[in-house]
Parts: sequence; C-alpha cells; structure tokens
Amino acid sequence: MNGQDTFAIDPWGVVEHGLDLAGLARAESVFALSNGHIGLRANLDEGEPHGLPGTYLNGVFELRPLPYAESGYGYPESGQSVINVTNGKIIRLLVDDEPFDLRYGDLHQHQRSLDFRDGVLRRTAEWTSPAGRTVKVSSARLVSLTQRAVAAFDYTVEAVDGPVRIVLQSELVANEQLPDGERDPRAAAVLEAPLVAEAHEAVGTKAVLVHRTRYSGLRVAAGMDHLIEGPDRFEATAEATEQQGRISVTTVLQAGERLRLVKFVAYGWSATRSLPAVRDQVEAALTAARYTGWDGLVAEQKGFLGEFWGGSDIEVEGDVELQQAVRFALFHVLQAGARSEERAIPAKGLTGPGYDGHSFWDTETFVLPVLTYCLPTAVDQALRWRHTTLPMARERAAQLGLAGAVFPWRTIRGEECSGYWPAGTAAFHIGADIAAAVVRYVHATGDVEFERTWGLELLVETARMWRSLGHHDPAGRFRIEGVTGPDEYSAVADNNVFTNLMAQTNLRAAAEAATRHPLEAGLLGVDTEEAAAWRDAAAAMFIPYDENLGVHPQADGFTDHQLWDFESTPAENYPLLLHYPYFDLYRKQVVKQADLVLAMQVRGDAFTDEQKARNFAYYERLTVRDSSLSACTQAVIAAEVGQLDLAYDYTAEAALMDLHDLGGNTRDGLHMASLAGACIALVAGFGGLRDRGGRLSFRPRLPSGLRRLSFALRVRDNLLRVEITHAATTYTLKRGESIQVQHDGEVLEVKAGSPLHRPTTVAEVPPERCTQPPGREPARRHPQAGVHTQPIEHLPAE
Amino acid sequence: MNGQDTFAIDPWGVVEHGLDLAGLARAESVFALSNGHIGLRANLDEGEPHGLPGTYLNGVFELRPLPYAESGYGYPESGQSVINVTNGKIIRLLVDDEPFDLRYGDLHQHQRSLDFRDGVLRRTAEWTSPAGRTVKVSSARLVSLTQRAVAAFDYTVEAVDGPVRIVLQSELVANEQLPDGERDPRAAAVLEAPLVAEAHEAVGTKAVLVHRTRYSGLRVAAGMDHLIEGPDRFEATAEATEQQGRISVTTVLQAGERLRLVKFVAYGWSATRSLPAVRDQVEAALTAARYTGWDGLVAEQKGFLGEFWGGSDIEVEGDVELQQAVRFALFHVLQAGARSEERAIPAKGLTGPGYDGHSFWDTETFVLPVLTYCLPTAVDQALRWRHTTLPMARERAAQLGLAGAVFPWRTIRGEECSGYWPAGTAAFHIGADIAAAVVRYVHATGDVEFERTWGLELLVETARMWRSLGHHDPAGRFRIEGVTGPDEYSAVADNNVFTNLMAQTNLRAAAEAATRHPLEAGLLGVDTEEAAAWRDAAAAMFIPYDENLGVHPQADGFTDHQLWDFESTPAENYPLLLHYPYFDLYRKQVVKQADLVLAMQVRGDAFTDEQKARNFAYYERLTVRDSSLSACTQAVIAAEVGQLDLAYDYTAEAALMDLHDLGGNTRDGLHMASLAGACIALVAGFGGLRDRGGRLSFRPRLPSGLRRLSFALRVRDNLLRVEITHAATTYTLKRGESIQVQHDGEVLEVKAGSPLHRPTTVAEVPPERCTQPPGREPARRHPQAGVHTQPIEHLPAE
Repeated sequence: MNGQDTFAIDPWGVVEHGLDLAGLARAESVFALSNGHIGLRANLDEGEPHGLPGTYLNGVFELRPLPYAESGYGYPESGQSVINVTNGKIIRLLVDDEPFDLRYGDLHQHQRSLDFRDGVLRRTAEWTSPAGRTVKVSSARLVSLTQRAVAAFDYTVEAVDGPVRIVLQSELVANEQLPDGERDPRAAAVLEAPLVAEAHEAVGTKAVLVHRTRYSGLRVAAGMDHLIEGPDRFEATAEATEQQGRISVTTVLQAGERLRLVKFVAYGWSATRSLPAVRDQVEAALTAARYTGWDGLVAEQKGFLGEFWGGSDIEVEGDVELQQAVRFALFHVLQAGARSEERAIPAKGLTGPGYDGHSFWDTETFVLPVLTYCLPTAVDQALRWRHTTLPMARERAAQLGLAGAVFPWRTIRGEECSGYWPAGTAAFHIGADIAAAVVRYVHATGDVEFERTWGLELLVETARMWRSLGHHDPAGRFRIEGVTGPDEYSAVADNNVFTNLMAQTNLRAAAEAATRHPLEAGLLGVDTEEAAAWRDAAAAMFIPYDENLGVHPQADGFTDHQLWDFESTPAENYPLLLHYPYFDLYRKQVVKQADLVLAMQVRGDAFTDEQKARNFAYYERLTVRDSSLSACTQAVIAAEVGQLDLAYDYTAEAALMDLHDLGGNTRDGLHMASLAGACIALVAGFGGLRDRGGRLSFRPRLPSGLRRLSFALRVRDNLLRVEITHAATTYTLKRGESIQVQHDGEVLEVKAGSPLHRPTTVAEVPPERCTQPPGREPARRHPQAGVHTQPIEHLPAE
Repeated sequence: MNGQDTFAIDPWGVVEHGLDLAGLARAESVFALSNGHIGLRANLDEGEPHGLPGTYLNGVFELRPLPYAESGYGYPESGQSVINVTNGKIIRLLVDDEPFDLRYGDLHQHQRSLDFRDGVLRRTAEWTSPAGRTVKVSSARLVSLTQRAVAAFDYTVEAVDGPVRIVLQSELVANEQLPDGERDPRAAAVLEAPLVAEAHEAVGTKAVLVHRTRYSGLRVAAGMDHLIEGPDRFEATAEATEQQGRISVTTVLQAGERLRLVKFVAYGWSATRSLPAVRDQVEAALTAARYTGWDGLVAEQKGFLGEFWGGSDIEVEGDVELQQAVRFALFHVLQAGARSEERAIPAKGLTGPGYDGHSFWDTETFVLPVLTYCLPTAVDQALRWRHTTLPMARERAAQLGLAGAVFPWRTIRGEECSGYWPAGTAAFHIGADIAAAVVRYVHATGDVEFERTWGLELLVETARMWRSLGHHDPAGRFRIEGVTGPDEYSAVADNNVFTNLMAQTNLRAAAEAATRHPLEAGLLGVDTEEAAAWRDAAAAMFIPYDENLGVHPQADGFTDHQLWDFESTPAENYPLLLHYPYFDLYRKQVVKQADLVLAMQVRGDAFTDEQKARNFAYYERLTVRDSSLSACTQAVIAAEVGQLDLAYDYTAEAALMDLHDLGGNTRDGLHMASLAGACIALVAGFGGLRDRGGRLSFRPRLPSGLRRLSFALRVRDNLLRVEITHAATTYTLKRGESIQVQHDGEVLEVKAGSPLHRPTTVAEVPPERCTQPPGREPARRHPQAGVHTQPIEHLPAE
C-alpha cells in the first residue's frame, strides 16, 4: 500500500483495513492520541511489531550536549530532546504458548479506526496462532480530554475455538529499546535509557513506577490499575521491578468465551515535587479514572468533542477526502492544544519524536490562529507558557547584546536549543510571531485581563528587542540586518520584508498596549520616550522594493541573485537541503517555503492588489515547498489573487500532508502546522478571513471543485457561522447578540436570529495559472477527487 | 616578566636570560626549530617542566570526527589534527639521586639563545641539586636544513663539585601526555595517545620505535643514535619498549670533569611504505648524520643559512628591535618553508599545535610572497603540494555543485576540514589566492616549465570554479554572491570586492596561460570558448561602490550596516569573536582584518590614489585587528597613502607579534603569516614593491623612525639589492646582467656593476593620521624604540 491507499475515506474518521508492516510508524502517528499533556503513539497493544514506540509527556525531556566542530560565542551548549517515557500501552497476549504477534500465524482480519467524534481508537483482529488456535481481539483506547493525567484501554480477547489457555500481561515498561536513529537532521536524536529508577510497587491490580531523568532532573511517575471481566476462574498477579510493572491475568477460555481487561493509566511529572507527591498524584488520577470507568471516560470524551465540533467544524461539500482531511487536521490540532496548559505545543504535537519534540514559530503562526477561533483557552495557555519563559528569553537577549527578550527558535522548556545559528538565532521573527499571536488572541476574545497580565509584557519585551536589533540609516530608514526570515533557503540577509513588517506590527502593538495599560507599562519601565521610539521605528521601517522588476525582494538583494537551476535539478534531489549545501541555496533565488508570500497574508495592508498578484507570481516560480509550512500560505494568497484552483490544490496538499505522507516523514510525527494550515487555507483562503484591527473581514471565493464551505468562529462572546456556496455567502450568529463583519468590503451587522445573505463573488476571467518550478507543481485536484479511490467504509457503530 | 621583556634584543638572535616558568610555552614556540619537514618545540632537554611538548612531522596527522549539533549537506565529517609524534628531544639527567629539574634545587644561571646565522639553539645552566651537588649543563640542538630527516643534540654535563654520580637517559617517548585542551576555538584539539606501536628495538647506542596512527594510517618511525665522550669509565645500556626507547649512560664525574652526549635523531613516515622500508630509511638517515657528525651538521647549517642571509637579509637601521624582529621573522619563515617539499606550510609552521596544524590561505597570501623572492624553490614545492591535492579539490567542487576545483579553507592533507562553513567553505577566495601565488612565482622566476606542468592546471581549475560560482545579472554584470572575504567579522555576503578582484585576476591569468600553453590547455579540455568565457566574466566583473560615501563597500550593502558600537566595547571584550555572537558581528560595520584594504594591495591597479586614501581612512575606523593577518596589510597601504608613521607602527606590530606575544597565543605556535607580513610591510610598504605583470616597481618612502632600509630580491637569475635612506634609493644588481624596474614610475635599467641612485621621495605635508577604533590603535613606535629596554647581550661566540 502506498501512503494514499493506506486509509479509507470517511468524513468523520480514519479507518485502516489490514496491517501494513512497512507503514507501521506512519500509522502510529496518524492514529496517535493526545490531549496536549500526554501523547500516545498508536503502537499495537502487544508492543510488537512497532515502527517507533512512543509515549510522551509534555515538557518531559532530557538534556544532551550540542557539539560543534568549531564553537562560537553564544552557541547553545545544551539541547533538549523529548523522551519516550514509561510505556503504559502494552497489553501482551499469550494464546496457549504462543505470543499474539501479527508477524506470525494467520491474520484473518485486522482493522483500526479513529473516530473524530469520540476520540477513541478502536481495533479488531482475528488471528490464528502458528499452533492453530484462533482468537478475536478487540481493543479501544483514549487519552482523556477531561482528565488530563489519564489514558484508558478496553481490551477483550475471545476464543473462537476452545478451550484455549490465555495469559494477558498488562505492563508499564520504562526505557524501551528504540530503533536506531537516522541521519536525516529532521529526525530526532535517540536518547537511550533516559530514565533512572526511583521507586516501583505492585499490589492487586495496580502498579506504579517512578523514575527520574538523568540530566534534566525531572521526576516521572506512571501508574496503572485494572478491571477484569472474564469467565469464573481467572487469576491475576502483580509484579514490579525497576523497569517494569506487570499485571498478569490467566484463564482458560472455551469457544465463544471472552476475557476483558480495562486498563487505566495515569502519569505525573514534576521538576520540583517530591517522590511521594508525584506518586500520590498518579494514584489519585487512577482512583478518579477507575471511578469514572471506561464508559464514563468515553462519555466525557464525546461530550468534550461534541462541544468542539458543534462550534468549530469546517464542512466541505464536494470533496469528501478533503472533508475527512480537514476534520483530521482539526482533531489533531485540538489534541495538541487542548490540555497543554502552560506548556509548549510542539511542532509534532505529542505524536512523535520529530524535531526532538521542539516547539518553533509554527505554534504562534499556524496552530494558534486556528485555536484562537475555536478553543481560545488553549491560546491563552500557550501564550502564558511563552510568558513563563521570559526570564530565559531576557537572559538570551542579554547574551546576544540585545534589549528585551529573544525567544528561542526551538525549545522544549524555554532555552534556545538551535545548534545552527543562521537558521536558529538569526530567525528573530519568532518574537514578532509571538506578539502577533497575542494581538490576535486579544482581538478575538476581548480578553483585556490577559493583555494586561501577560500580553503587555510579551509585547513590550519583543518591541524592545526589535528596537535594539534594528538601526536608522543616514536617510532615516529603520533597517533590520543580518536576520533570517521564514524561508530556510535564505539566511542572514538584510531587511527581510516579512521580518520588517512583523516587527513594525510588533512595535506598534507594544506602543498601543502601553497606552491602554499605562500603569502596568510603567511598572515594566516603559515611558513615553520609549513608546515614541517604537512608533518612530515602526513608521520609518524600511521595506525594500525592486523597481525594475516591480516586485518586493524577499530581502535586500534577493532579486539580484542567480536563479536556481531548476531544469537541472532532478526530482530525487528534493528536498534540496539534503542534496545541496546551504551556501549554494542561500545565494540563489530558490525558496523553501512562503516568506514574502506569508508577509502578504499577515500584512496584506502593506501591499497593493497589483503587488500581491505580481509578487505571488514571481515567488511561485521559485518556491519548491520543501517545507510543510508553505502550501497553506500559498493557498491563502493564491485565493486572494484569484487563482482559486491553484489555491484548492495547495489546500489539499496541506490537508493531506500526513494522511498521504507527502513529506515521507509522517513516521516521526504529524505536521501540526500543515494540518492547522489546511484549516487556515480554507477559512482565510476561500473564506478570505482577515483580522483587521479586531474586525473580521471576509472575501469568500469558492474553487470549482467545492460546492459548499462552511465554518464557524468564536469571536468574543459570539459564535459566527459562515456558509459559502458559489451563489451566496450566509453569515449566521449562532451565539451572541450581534457582530460587525465585512463582506467584500461591505460592513455587515450580523444579528442573532437574522442570518445575512450576500452573493459570493465569482471571478469573471480567472487569471492565468501561475507556474511553479518544474516538477514542484502541486498535484492537480480534480472535482470529486478521492471519492472513487476506495469504497467508503463506515466506522463501527458505537 | 611580561611578553615584551622576556627576550633580550640582538640583531642576529634571540636570547633568554633566566627561566620564566609561566612563559615556558611561549618560549617553546619562539625557540622552536624546524626545517619544514620536522619541527621541534623548544622543550627543555630534560622534558619537564614543559609548557606544551611538541614534535611535529609535516603531514603526520590523525583524523577526528567533526561533530555538528545540526548537520547539513556537504559538511566535512572528518577533521585532521597535527599530532605530537615520538619525542626524540629528551635527555634526562640524574645528579646523584636527584633528577635535574629546574623547579627544584637552586638555579644559578640559565640562558637560551637562538642564532639566526647557524640555526642552533644553545642553552647553558648551572644548578645545585636539593642535595647540594652543583653541575653545569650546556646543550645545543639543531634541525638540519641539509639532511631533512635529521635533528641533532650536543649535551654536556660538568661536575662543579665532585665526585658526583651522573646518569644520562636519552630517550624516544611516544604518546606523551599533553596538558588539557582549552576552550578557545583557536587552540588545537588535543588527541590522546594517537600512536599504535608496531615495532621497537634497541642495540648499542641506538634505538628505533615504529608506530602507526590509528585512523589516518600513517606509519611513523623515530630513531636515535649517540656518541659518548667522558671520563674513562662509563657504561651505556640500551632498552626499548613499545612506547619508549632509552640509552642510559652512567659514570662518576670528579669536579671539572665532563660527560658529553651527541644525539642524532631521525624520522621517517609514510602512508604507503612498509615497516622495514620506513625503519631502514630512518636508520640510513642516522648513519649519514653520524658520519657527518655534530660539527659537520653545524657547518652545513651555517652554509645553508649564510647563503640565505647573503641573498635575503632585510636590514633596518635606526630600530634594533625591529631589526631583530624582522630577522626572527625571516628565519622562521625560512624554517617553515625550507624543506616542506610537496607538503603544506601550516599557519603555525611546525612550531605548535595551533589551528590543528592546518594550512590556510595564509600560505599563498603571506608566506609565499616572501619566499618567492628569497627561496623560490620552496614556493615551487608548496604549489606542487596544492597541485597534488587537485583530485580532492575537484571532488569537493563536484560535491558543492561547482566546476573545476574548490580548495579547502583549512587542511593538512587536502580535504576540507572546516567545521563552520560561513567562515570556511564560503571563503572561496582561497582559489584565487593560490592562482595569484602561481602567477607571482612564474613572474618572479620565469619558470615556464613549472607553469606548463603544474601552474596551468591550478589556474584552469580555479578559473572554472569562479566561472561556475558567479553569474551575469540582467545588466550583464558578473556577480559572485554568498561568499566570505578575508574579514572574518563578515560572512556570506555578495560581491566582496577582494574576492571579485582576485577572481578577475584568476580568470584572466588562466586565459593567458592557456594561450601560452595551448597544447597543455587543450589536454585539460580548455577550448577557445571556455577561455573567452573567462575573459568575458573578468571584464564584466561587478565591483560595488558607494557613491554617497565615495568609498568601496567591502561587499554589497556593507556601508549601509550599523556601525559597531566601539565606544561601549570594553578593552577586555577583544577579540570580539570570544565575546559577541557571529550574527552581531556579521551584520555590523566592524572589520576583523584587512579585506578591502588587502584588495587595494593585491589589486592596486583597480583603485585611484584618491580612492585608496578614502577607503583606507574609512576602514581604519572599523578595523580592530583581532586577527594577526591585518597589521602587515594596513602597514602596506598606510605607507602607500603617505601615513608613514602609522605604517611603521603596524610594521612593528606585525614583526613583534610573537616576540612580544601580542595575540596572547604564541604558546600554540608562531604566527607565520604575521611574521612573513612584517617582511612584506617593509618591502611592499616602505619599499613600495609591487609586481605589475612581471615587472617590479618600487615607490620607496621611509618613516621618520628608520634611517635605512635595505633588502634583496631574487628575480629570475638576478639578485637585486635595494637600499633606501631618506635621501636616496640605490638599486644594485648583485647577480645577473641587467633588470628593468620602476622607481616612482620611472623605468630604470639596472645593470651589473652599475648601481643606480635615485632620490627618495619625501612627503611634503604628511596627511592627517587616520584613526582607529578607540583602544585599538597600534602602539606608537618612537624612533629608537626598544634599544634602551634592555642591555644588548651578545650571543655566545661559536
């Protein structure tokens, strides 16, 4: 099976038929369950075979040295890597004397399915052992969205032909052996045996293991408890060693008899709390989970998700595969952010070890814009996490000779972990990305208290950084030099347009927030002179423009550079960074990911319509999308400049990044930013949503492939639903009294109970389709694509 | 003692009185002996105390992994580090039961002196042991310039009060324990126990050890043989183990009696030859050395050096300290290059482990210009070494997607060993530096055979590299983008003026050489189209110029950058690279070392006199000289623009770099480029020497501090002596028939036996002295400086 055929298409879930051993790791990512606090890769219950075992706790990492062939001042010396913590997923099964292992015997049936409406991953299998005994196994698992420390498993084995001796071993396993690492710099460093045993106990149906990480000094406790249902006679024993906890259940099943095990797993971790405190916290969580029970946990899960989908579903009519993909995207973005609670949202969520479990600008630029309008509390929490890292960011700024705060390009706890400064430290735009997320959140929620308590300081410290990073040239222009923008095939350039425009917004927002909260600003040391200096720098911000070409260079001199020789670049040489040296990429016109095009999305006011069209066409020819953070942005601007079919193609690419494994590395975890980006592509691209100083504006345009697009936005106390067909766009206020929006420039007052209809603009003569580098065109998405690729299988009924 | 007071001033040598334990490592570098093939740091005979033990063989290195926190395509994975090979210098002395160790007992007298005229390092000591026995020790050592595999030692101990029991242990010691490495990236990586034993033997007064390096697979043999003179009764025994060879001599000396040991040491090494072959080669060298004897070796040394000084001495009248320093410089440059013979000349010569023993552009840009006019055979050999590395350089070019050859920024054997590409791979100018060295050598020697056989291919392959690295912009200008010039406080910039001008020269030189050698060029695949493409690119070369300021930016945009805040930079924060991040240095106007100013030296024809003066003044304000490769170049251009006193200050700084330990790191080895640069400063600065297409031109100008400057140049078959006083300049042909030169633009025909006199131009109104960053001004050199700092001690007579 290739990536495209692995999963059946269903609008509300993902279903896998059979078992693709080569694609195990990919499926483990796709079916990963998380609540943002705990993350479980979808390893099989029996542990093996596996692609990449993974159990992650948000914020649990190990330190590792960052080596340099030639060191330099200010290079981070210590990195942080997410670790695979104690695995609580394992339920091994012995059928007579044979372990249930799908690599042996005969597998008659195997299916896994993930339902977005209840967040439960279900599995069924029918298997005959090499010795000829047949069993049916069915299991279900969830990571609770309501009890954040808890995961639960419901496991049943049924004898088809009996009698058969059955042993179930439900385990906690610490320091699992992991497959060897790879050379690809994007794959995570593998850290061996990071957990040092502190305590272990097992009694009755319960076991707890406590460990500590060797260098980062984090205490991690994992516990499990069980309910057992079976025939009258069964026996259960509990054991624990330093690296393992095990509850063994044994019985003999007659044909048709079943043994059921419900397993509750809880995790607790802390850098400061004592061993008894962390252990007790885990046992308390187990007690609550056991009290709630499996059915109770599933019911809570349904409730949480019902509320989420009710307010946040994106409906796509005319392309069921895209419908599935966008719900898959929303579901995983929700999983990543739901309960992260003052911890970071990593680039892969908690679905895999890719990028060492680090968080980047992805969070503020792609993930939070989605959560802002559907789960604003998650944004509040994510930005509070950034706020907790301010002491580290201030220290980093001081080390770099800058004022204010320099946030890390990549991190888990808050320290800079980037080992290559031209694509790390130099990407100062992270500060403005955070500031923009603050402004967006405050606009969308009206949460003045947040702005006063957390947001203001983030805005002030990033503005200070910009003011000290840039300088006025003799002509009075404010220049920001030697920085790296979003495009990672350029680095350390002067006056990157994206960076300068984002810095401008950041400087202005800080000055405005200081004006709104003079008292708090004063406590931060902001006086009127400082605020004036921010405004002046913003007003004088230099934005390079190439008069000859009539386009904006991505940064000073970019359009003078040699064009990359796309014609001589064979398809197998993508991604280019694995086949060409940075020096060559940096000095030529070739773009890894939207940079100037992203500037046009986030700061559309700084460009005329004509500039947008010319710039977009110019950069389309250069952009190879070797990053998953590109297609969604290209989709948004393609839609804005009227290239609706191209926008559609890019939207599908962003949405299918993981379901179709387009980057070939879904095994290391899901691409949260691309998934979030797919939602942005639909809402900001076809919906044309922009937030202009707090007022939402829409500019709906549908590609020919879609019949209807509908989405909802939580804005302050309102829930606004927007429904777009080729004929009309309807604005409905589902909650709240009234809201002002713009539709194609017209100001509308949408009131409760009075949906407003407006005609959807149709481009009369669509512009000529822009061209991409040869071989790098997005796959053309034909109307009804995907529908016929495989018969739709319905999810198993509840 | 501080650096300045350590060594007494003598015009023909360096003398150290007493022993500065804290300055041991520095003295070991200053007194290091080498012939370019073998290098011995001046560790004390008895081995301890030491600063940094060091015995080096040119081309003997170990491989070590180059680690990266984040790896990238084309990053070198393996580095090469010079290793401390088997130490043959050790002669331990036991006086009764006490080891002769200057840290204990009473040292009544200690003196070391190096005589530039015979290249012998002599030492005398009078010492009373803790037990009260007094001995006089005198020793002398040399590394033969005539027998390249050989070093020799003449060691005598005399009993002052007797009888005293004496034991001498003359040793070969492999895998000496070295002091721990330091964090400074400029210090070498310490490699522990790199030698794996293969064979050892000891018989009579002779011992041989053979080892092999673990990863680089080089076989190294070290042997020693001895002559012993003493009172009638003495006993000698020979022993060898895997790591040690030892000849022990014991006797009892009465007061006034002496025991003398003459030790011959020989080295052989090979990547391919068998153990017996390498061992026999060493024994043969020992046989020859023993046959020559100590006195014979000293006589050969005197002969070699007499010939050298006769043709190459630089005489400076009016500043005896500078006179000493420039002869020190010439002596060490000679030692580095004399017998390197198809091996590299490292940045530190063979005087220390600094920079891992690597060779850089220093060789072609600073060392070879000096050797070209005094020891051209060494230049022939050094460039042939580059030629032998062409296969590796071609492979590197292919890896980087370029045509021709890309020579390594730093290497021992020829592979790129730079672990930081912005200051390594991106410094493509190394190719043009090699090409310029080829052209200079061919001009100076008329060695057409060299050009045909070796030079042409170097020119062709580097020209091909430039043609593929640059590109024509729409306006037809040839641009070279994303490269790093000489200044290491900028990196990866577009159109670095130095690089572009050097590339222009390289492209033209290749085309011209191909025209002169059409047959050979054809064999290299050069056709008329290719040569034309080189000429066209050279003609269209883009040289940025800032019209507003009326100066050349070092590279595109440089003069728009923010000025470094020198006022707020405390003195202890230099060198800046150890206190500020690269990102900050790169994006501001601050210059580590002459870059645009070096361009004005090597391509003076590309600048008007007014531009030179304006550019020099502009860059003086920005140049902090955190590199030792700067003062000499600033001296040359300061002299050209009439800033003679400033030029004098810079010349002295370059010349005294190591004698005064101005960089604080002489301990790691001498700064060959700065030493060579001091000679360049005198000859090209005050002498005004330029090579314009093969004809030497002079523009003599003397600073007020000097009364007379005289130097000689070997040009083709001529030896031209130039003597400059404030009144007149005299050109004398010491060898050869006739030579054309220019004096202040006037063409002169200097003939044998007819010295020509011309008045020396004196600037009427010297221009205002240029200013440097605060605190970074060169020390002002007053006339007669140094003469009074310490009474001159004459070297011991032969």
